[in-house]
Amino acid sequence: MADAIGREFFTTRTVADALAGFRPRRRTRTEAVPLAAALRRVPATPVSAPHSLPGFARSTVDGYAVRAADTYGVSEGLPGYLTVIGTVRMGSEPDTTVTPGTAVAMPTGGVIPPGGDAVVMVEYTAEAMPGTIEVVRPVAPGEGIVRADEDARPGDEIVPGGRPLRPQDLGMLAAAGVTTVTVHEKPVVTIFSTGDEVIPPEAAELKPGQVRDATASALAALVADAGGEPVYGGIVPDDPGALEIALRGALPASDLLVISAGSSVGARDETANAVARLGPPGIWCHGLAIKPGKPTLLAECGDVPVIGLPGNPRSALVVFRLIGMPVIRLVGGCEVPPPEPSTRARLSRDLASATGRLDIVQVTVNAGVAAPVFGLSALLSVLTQADGYIVIPEEATGLDAGSEVNVILYG
Amino acid sequence: MADAIGREFFTTRTVADALAGFRPRRRTRTEAVPLAAALRRVPATPVSAPHSLPGFARSTVDGYAVRAADTYGVSEGLPGYLTVIGTVRMGSEPDTTVTPGTAVAMPTGGVIPPGGDAVVMVEYTAEAMPGTIEVVRPVAPGEGIVRADEDARPGDEIVPGGRPLRPQDLGMLAAAGVTTVTVHEKPVVTIFSTGDEVIPPEAAELKPGQVRDATASALAALVADAGGEPVYGGIVPDDPGALEIALRGALPASDLLVISAGSSVGARDETANAVARLGPPGIWCHGLAIKPGKPTLLAECGDVPVIGLPGNPRSALVVFRLIGMPVIRLVGGCEVPPPEPSTRARLSRDLASATGRLDIVQVTVNAGVAAPVFGLSALLSVLTQADGYIVIPEEATGLDAGSEVNVILYG
Repeated sequence: MADAIGREFFTTRTVADALAGFRPRRRTRTEAVPLAAALRRVPATPVSAPHSLPGFARSTVDGYAVRAADTYGVSEGLPGYLTVIGTVRMGSEPDTTVTPGTAVAMPTGGVIPPGGDAVVMVEYTAEAMPGTIEVVRPVAPGEGIVRADEDARPGDEIVPGGRPLRPQDLGMLAAAGVTTVTVHEKPVVTIFSTGDEVIPPEAAELKPGQVRDATASALAALVADAGGEPVYGGIVPDDPGALEIALRGALPASDLLVISAGSSVGARDETANAVARLGPPGIWCHGLAIKPGKPTLLAECGDVPVIGLPGNPRSALVVFRLIGMPVIRLVGGCEVPPPEPSTRARLSRDLASATGRLDIVQVTVNAGVAAPVFGLSALLSVLTQADGYIVIPEEATGLDAGSEVNVILYG
Repeated sequence: MADAIGREFFTTRTVADALAGFRPRRRTRTEAVPLAAALRRVPATPVSAPHSLPGFARSTVDGYAVRAADTYGVSEGLPGYLTVIGTVRMGSEPDTTVTPGTAVAMPTGGVIPPGGDAVVMVEYTAEAMPGTIEVVRPVAPGEGIVRADEDARPGDEIVPGGRPLRPQDLGMLAAAGVTTVTVHEKPVVTIFSTGDEVIPPEAAELKPGQVRDATASALAALVADAGGEPVYGGIVPDDPGALEIALRGALPASDLLVISAGSSVGARDETANAVARLGPPGIWCHGLAIKPGKPTLLAECGDVPVIGLPGNPRSALVVFRLIGMPVIRLVGGCEVPPPEPSTRARLSRDLASATGRLDIVQVTVNAGVAAPVFGLSALLSVLTQADGYIVIPEEATGLDAGSEVNVILYG
């Protein structure tokens, strides 16, 4: 079944297909933020150095600015002698010029005075008599000096666009005097929970059959980790029409809608119907070849991506990590996702897997051994007990005990 | 030289010594924070489940609650027949009891009615006539059911103390109705910059010899990454006494003092003198066997750790990542530091290293090849161009081109 623009409804896709093919075109707008709030924010465009850095030739050592030629051939046995004609003070312009046969005392970081083309380390000098030093090692031109444009030339890209800012990037921007940065707005991700049995975590007492909403809190944290701004849309009852109304209400202010759907077939159909009615282009896939997490729905309404997650909290979180977080980064302009912590480990036991399906297996890691944490996909404790997870690819039929696996670690 | 309690002044230590031996006893107090603000915060003590989770036996499938014994021996060829005596609704208590020969219709997640000990998936049933189903597969007791205490028994530890909360931990706490968590306060880290040449990043124009404060912004970001609360102490001029006054002023409200010291020998001595005068137990080491980063000072004043960093921004950031961030985690009660992203790569060229000294080499990583980024330790661009770094241990004399290295990646 295909709609007017050729999208198939109720198609099961592989995770690889989804990552490659479900690429919403929406991007957040940009905003200017102060440097102190810019960590992990994503610059919309590269930032260039407005002037050379450090901006003046500086000494890299404590010593004497000299003309390198004046030190040629000197040695411990045959020192050279130079007249000290001044001292450079930190943060000040030199008031002397190095002329043949002279030296100017310098602290590390001081401005190289005119005429000087090298700095002799103080360790290779001695005061021969007041006002005169002996130099026991020659220096080459440029030695002991950082050039005025060695950290950056004017116009050099100092941070790229599309990559979250790291601590050292903030340092470089500060050095360049760039104290506000134009970054992508954080994608606003509205999270809905559905189900007549779901009640807020704050509820003190549970009536029989009720469960507290675990998924929304965990999803909000994953949204924040991906650089998004989570917004709680609330708990929607299993009432035909209620979800559609809730989604429509949130659409204008959202960059992504996430629904942790009910677990039952009826609740899932309700979600699919509500999402389909939101508008074109509509449902991109309904069903992912992944365990746990099969009943996942990916859609777009206008340019707003919509992700319907399985009702089991564990399944929902597994799928959101694999599919939802990349979508948030994409919408937020992040082209270079941050690296994930991982480790190599040996598998403690055989693991079976069906071909054509990605299997995500939660594991603990101790002393280089990855031990699967088993349990129903309804159990959140499987995730809280795990240190990370391994991915068994679609083509594999399983993994043998003792095989080396890559564990993605929870940070 | 040793003080009254046996500490040596001006001792150079290895990084391993510093990590093992510089263990300030200070710990932050605790505070209660709402779940929505608890991501990455460090619980002071383990949190236990106040009641069993999910709290009632639930169906894991859509189907029929039955007595397992009623299905023994059934098959496609010889189905069993059961009378449907009711339907469980989500979030409600069942109003029927499963008796021999009967079944109750169930959605996934519904409460198992009294008398039922298994759930037959709807796929293995058919409506034989109104009010009667045929069952074509037997179920064992417990099949299709998550037990009332299968996710947690009352009193089970659901999150440990001392480990930063992860997204799934927040989910588990929400499920248990724990909506405020007692966590360690974020360590307050006051950051001072020193040097007559250093001016705030906001300064529009630089006079000759002046540089903007790059280090403080980058340090603040590293503090935040380690779970601390950065506070800017300001820029202190190279004026005897000024630094001591500034440090004393910040001491009562700080859990850690960090000073990015001047680069010159005079400025470094000034820092050491000021720190020594703050009070006992005093300086633990002055000089680390690391490149870059040798002129590092570690001290304690009362129970407040004090870290004096090298003046070169790059050296300061390298040392702070290796030594300062672990101290922040320690003071903030984090006993299980989060895993760091890393990757294996082949070294592009030979690297020399002096024995007895830890060498930190910045690298780019492309297609599995780690290429060193060279440059003076005064250059911040070496860090901004790098994807991560490799550690050449104290005992090594270098690494050969082509050798496999572990690269710690910047996230």
